[in-house]
Amino acid sequence: MIDSNTNVLVVSAHAADFVWRGGGAIAKYVKHGANVHLVILSYGARGESNDLWNIDGQTLENVKLHRQSEIDAATKCLGVKNVEIWDYEDYHMEFNGERMKQLVSKIREVKPDIIITHGPRDAFNPDHEAVSKFVFDAAVLSTSNGVRLEGTATVKQAKIFGFEPHQSEISEFKPDVILDISEVYEQKKAAMECFKAQQHLINYYGYKAELRGNHARRCSGNNSYKQAEAFSRFFPYVGGEFV
Amino acid sequence: MIDSNTNVLVVSAHAADFVWRGGGAIAKYVKHGANVHLVILSYGARGESNDLWNIDGQTLENVKLHRQSEIDAATKCLGVKNVEIWDYEDYHMEFNGERMKQLVSKIREVKPDIIITHGPRDAFNPDHEAVSKFVFDAAVLSTSNGVRLEGTATVKQAKIFGFEPHQSEISEFKPDVILDISEVYEQKKAAMECFKAQQHLINYYGYKAELRGNHARRCSGNNSYKQAEAFSRFFPYVGGEFV
Amino acid sequence: MIDSNTNVLVVSAHAADFVWRGGGAIAKYVKHGANVHLVILSYGARGESNDLWNIDGQTLENVKLHRQSEIDAATKCLGVKNVEIWDYEDYHMEFNGERMKQLVSKIREVKPDIIITHGPRDAFNPDHEAVSKFVFDAAVLSTSNGVRLEGTATVKQAKIFGFEPHQSEISEFKPDVILDISEVYEQKKAAMECFKAQQHLINYYGYKAELRGNHARRCSGNNSYKQAEAFSRFFPYVGGEFV
Amino acid sequence: MIDSNTNVLVVSAHAADFVWRGGGAIAKYVKHGANVHLVILSYGARGESNDLWNIDGQTLENVKLHRQSEIDAATKCLGVKNVEIWDYEDYHMEFNGERMKQLVSKIREVKPDIIITHGPRDAFNPDHEAVSKFVFDAAVLSTSNGVRLEGTATVKQAKIFGFEPHQSEISEFKPDVILDISEVYEQKKAAMECFKAQQHLINYYGYKAELRGNHARRCSGNNSYKQAEAFSRFFPYVGGEFV
Amino acid sequence: MIDSNTNVLVVSAHAADFVWRGGGAIAKYVKHGANVHLVILSYGARGESNDLWNIDGQTLENVKLHRQSEIDAATKCLGVKNVEIWDYEDYHMEFNGERMKQLVSKIREVKPDIIITHGPRDAFNPDHEAVSKFVFDAAVLSTSNGVRLEGTATVKQAKIFGFEPHQSEISEFKPDVILDISEVYEQKKAAMECFKAQQHLINYYGYKAELRGNHARRCSGNNSYKQAEAFSRFFPYVGGEFV
Amino acid sequence: MIDSNTNVLVVSAHAADFVWRGGGAIAKYVKHGANVHLVILSYGARGESNDLWNIDGQTLENVKLHRQSEIDAATKCLGVKNVEIWDYEDYHMEFNGERMKQLVSKIREVKPDIIITHGPRDAFNPDHEAVSKFVFDAAVLSTSNGVRLEGTATVKQAKIFGFEPHQSEISEFKPDVILDISEVYEQKKAAMECFKAQQHLINYYGYKAELRGNHARRCSGNNSYKQAEAFSRFFPYVGGEFV
Repeated sequence: MIDSNTNVLVVSAHAADFVWRGGGAIAKYVKHGANVHLVILSYGARGESNDLWNIDGQTLENVKLHRQSEIDAATKCLGVKNVEIWDYEDYHMEFNGERMKQLVSKIREVKPDIIITHGPRDAFNPDHEAVSKFVFDAAVLSTSNGVRLEGTATVKQAKIFGFEPHQSEISEFKPDVILDISEVYEQKKAAMECFKAQQHLINYYGYKAELRGNHARRCSGNNSYKQAEAFSRFFPYVGGEFV
Repeated sequence: MIDSNTNVLVVSAHAADFVWRGGGAIAKYVKHGANVHLVILSYGARGESNDLWNIDGQTLENVKLHRQSEIDAATKCLGVKNVEIWDYEDYHMEFNGERMKQLVSKIREVKPDIIITHGPRDAFNPDHEAVSKFVFDAAVLSTSNGVRLEGTATVKQAKIFGFEPHQSEISEFKPDVILDISEVYEQKKAAMECFKAQQHLINYYGYKAELRGNHARRCSGNNSYKQAEAFSRFFPYVGGEFV
Repeated sequence: MIDSNTNVLVVSAHAADFVWRGGGAIAKYVKHGANVHLVILSYGARGESNDLWNIDGQTLENVKLHRQSEIDAATKCLGVKNVEIWDYEDYHMEFNGERMKQLVSKIREVKPDIIITHGPRDAFNPDHEAVSKFVFDAAVLSTSNGVRLEGTATVKQAKIFGFEPHQSEISEFKPDVILDISEVYEQKKAAMECFKAQQHLINYYGYKAELRGNHARRCSGNNSYKQAEAFSRFFPYVGGEFV
Repeated sequence: MIDSNTNVLVVSAHAADFVWRGGGAIAKYVKHGANVHLVILSYGARGESNDLWNIDGQTLENVKLHRQSEIDAATKCLGVKNVEIWDYEDYHMEFNGERMKQLVSKIREVKPDIIITHGPRDAFNPDHEAVSKFVFDAAVLSTSNGVRLEGTATVKQAKIFGFEPHQSEISEFKPDVILDISEVYEQKKAAMECFKAQQHLINYYGYKAELRGNHARRCSGNNSYKQAEAFSRFFPYVGGEFV
Repeated sequence: MIDSNTNVLVVSAHAADFVWRGGGAIAKYVKHGANVHLVILSYGARGESNDLWNIDGQTLENVKLHRQSEIDAATKCLGVKNVEIWDYEDYHMEFNGERMKQLVSKIREVKPDIIITHGPRDAFNPDHEAVSKFVFDAAVLSTSNGVRLEGTATVKQAKIFGFEPHQSEISEFKPDVILDISEVYEQKKAAMECFKAQQHLINYYGYKAELRGNHARRCSGNNSYKQAEAFSRFFPYVGGEFV
Repeated sequence: MIDSNTNVLVVSAHAADFVWRGGGAIAKYVKHGANVHLVILSYGARGESNDLWNIDGQTLENVKLHRQSEIDAATKCLGVKNVEIWDYEDYHMEFNGERMKQLVSKIREVKPDIIITHGPRDAFNPDHEAVSKFVFDAAVLSTSNGVRLEGTATVKQAKIFGFEPHQSEISEFKPDVILDISEVYEQKKAAMECFKAQQHLINYYGYKAELRGNHARRCSGNNSYKQAEAFSRFFPYVGGEFV
């Protein structure tokens, strides 16, 4: 059950990843009262802003401002309020001990039941793969009592779920979880529309939502599912009943 | 939630498979009021009764009687009442159109939300692999309106879960589901004790339950889990929240 | 280059598989003058005619007539003229020596450069998996001089391509070939519309074509690709240059 | 250590498989005094006698006689004396309960420490895959006390090793065992020369032996290895030291 | 055969890994006269000392002292005398050129026939994965004549074996080698008891030893095996006979 | 079709990799008029010059001079003129932001249709794996408009092909492309002969070429193929017809 005791941390490599790949999940958890925290590691200024750089005299600062405004609009559509942009350089995104401490501290602050981030493989996107390992390692470290960070205390192991990569089959993606997003789909659509320069992706992830909805119906026999998002699991499901 | 609207069908290749591999799941679902139906396809007279055949003058009929009494005792421990033994020959177990109809009809009668049976690979046990495909195919056929069987009506697609095979890693088994069986573990233990001739397996699956309990704690951070059973999934999880 | 020396054999398990999964490929090869032969193994009366069986008093004969008319309409849209329906029972489709001879003979008659059929794995559809092995084995046997069938002569090894299954990732499908079908997409769409009772599949495979078109553009940098179909390969590509 | 207490059973699908894929292993075990039993399931008259069928007026009987003489010559080169040809039809090779009993009885007679046969996957050769499963299942059944066959007694589980298939990578073959055959390589070469019509295979498996010799040297640092054969394992190595 | 010409190098990421995962192997090789060298890369002060950090006023220095005394006791139980602790920081463990030189030099000094260390994948433990690659790369470099390190000479390629990770199936672990440790199991047990704070792991690896003993018996038919440890192989087995 | 509009970039980790693994491909593309650019990242002085270091008083400078002369001779045999040696240290080869810029700039200068380099896995050679990722990441970055490098402009996504590693099966290599090199095989042979100190590799890759030629014939039925080279693909084939 999703409620105000549910803590969710979403870690997105670039400005729009969280919308295409997890916008429905975010909107749903916000709607049902969960505490959703969104960390966006970079503006995607180098790797995911092709159109903006086609403008004469474009500057890095201006690209970031532009992406900032899109992020603001999209997060408003999804209803998520705790949003941080860490402004790492992308394409290549690199990590070090300092950044590891930053994320471990964040995890210990949020105390997430659920972490949603990039899965381990993403063909065509080296940043997504690096972020996946970064978040996973930080999640493990955050549970260890010997990793001493002032003002923080260990948390219990969060469940971790991986976004669907753009080309799933050549990224070894298995849809372990198909999440029904029918009731918030209009919000996701609105959030996607905030990234107007990427009309081809708005279409693409619109179609995806319909396909995953079809899979949801076929796997469950439940025809009330309309649109869905798919995620991989990092660990087995553990619980008291078959779900 | 497990309750009296929950229908479960367990299909076991031989006399004791359902105890070693799913006894905890069965006891738990029975305890919480689900309708659990158990189909045992064979007595395991040829493949899983080595000790009995060491007795001079042993006969097939007698072996079956012996296994029948063990099954009766074990199912009593688990609390499951709807039990059928179909008395197929084992080692090799073979299937045909008649048997397919028999199982499709059973599925349509039980209307299971959940089917529990052998997973697709089981090193050292060709019967388990054959049963896995048999059950899967029957589950698919049972949903199809064009598969006309008098007195039956189509059912919606059941969720299917696979037993853990004896040697998991060389059988390509992944524990997709780790089911907490702490509250019914004494019942499972009692059921296992009904198969006294196989003391090495009683020990083995006792240790397994503890190891899976350790995994349950490590993956969830929940230390109330004591013993557990592991299962594979045949399809993705579909639902309204991350579990 | 596709021309009148190109022989293509398509083997479809059920009435509509060749449309959803390979309609674009068929239309394209027909359009460019290839000799396309289509073998439909069954009417899909049991496994893929759910809607028809909802009609009171429905009969098997009538279902087949209905599917026949849909096939006629769809093949007309695609322009394929050499069409055979072998009327095997589906759900379960079973094979034997006689049927193997029938297909080996057909392959030796058509002398295909290319065979298009179901790939080896298809979650939720046991028939598709059985057909995949049937066609593969027949293709191998057809090249062997010792497989003596009156009135036939051995052929050289055809290239074999596998249809995309309905749920690709859980069917271990890799898109080895992404085939541009932009120029014949209207024909495929028209062919799909011939199966009106399955509106959800018309939508589904419409979306799929757009997604695969996106992949085609991303993998190649060629923005002229609009819609595409994906296929697996049964063997490596062999040739004189990188393609 | 190989000696007169070592029992080996080799099961070959067709007339020459045991030479190309395991001739070195056979010669070596014979040379060191092991009891090597060779079962050849078919003459390969349909699937592996292309050249013979190019002769006008060729008959099945004559093809078998020809293959028989080649087998006689090759086994003489390798020094193996216990040779049986079971004359199953090949391409497709099919199995049933009778054949299963025949092989279980043979295994119980030979009491093999080691069984060498085809591995589970062999692209382009459906017979090899079917034989692999047939032999594996028989090996399992032969250990089971409930599988009653007059005049036989159960045996302990043999180690099973799989031949290298013709195209290893597309057959998912891993070389778990690289067996040094340097001291008997001349014998293997002589045995291969008995199949003169297949000069391309004589060359092919000659090159393979050299490549596997290179791998043997590289993996071990032992430069005395010259030629080698590769095999897969069906189960883990079990023993008292790292080998 | 294990004797005084057998050189073994064990590389353990943290203080106790070598006991849980390879204590039996170590005791066995020591017992039979091999030269066993143990390198422990870290005290596991940050990642594997949770209980110690629960003590008020705990310091890093004190944690290390505590782990040192446990290591001393455990190695004494196993009989291994050549023990070095390199005191790298753990959680995250990082490597660089200097550390690579340190390990290459060590390998060239020990001249190991066998290296035992962590396997390539270990869910929940990023350090183990990093150590696996570190050791593998060092093993390769140590054989290369162009890697010039004063006072060292190249060695031949060692066989490398991987420890069983804590959750084997989700770490893609295959038990390539199942090593009988029955004769030294009491020593392993005693060594495990030296890590009293981790009672749950003492139980866990006790159960594991029994399960692997069961697998050893089942795979070999040899009932003298009682307890065992499982390892993966980094390369194929190379040798003169099937083992 | 290969012609003067075809741009090819080959990136080789060490001095001779491009010859053993892609010499045929290079010679063929040069012969048919393509613009072939060869970047050799290191002289292989540390990892692939074992024999040279056996000479008393050997120096790094001298080893490099020696390798330079071999490279000059071999590239002459293959006909490739655009050759750069970047003189990175090998064994371990390490990468950083500067080197990434260097390769992105090179890709943007060459505008390759085809990039040929090491595949992602190569057992026994950590450098090859590191180079594979380096080249892949650079290829992705080179297409991104936000990766600003003075004097360069983005290019479209190149097709990327992976060399066959030395031990293919344990390096998870699949031969996606089998390239006929019959017409240039004498050139490849001559280029290989330039590395006289490595006679065992000259033999090895000579045998390989014959084996791959056999696979080319078997997969295609085209007997004109004599020698071939195998490559993996990094992405699916995209195009207008089945090839």
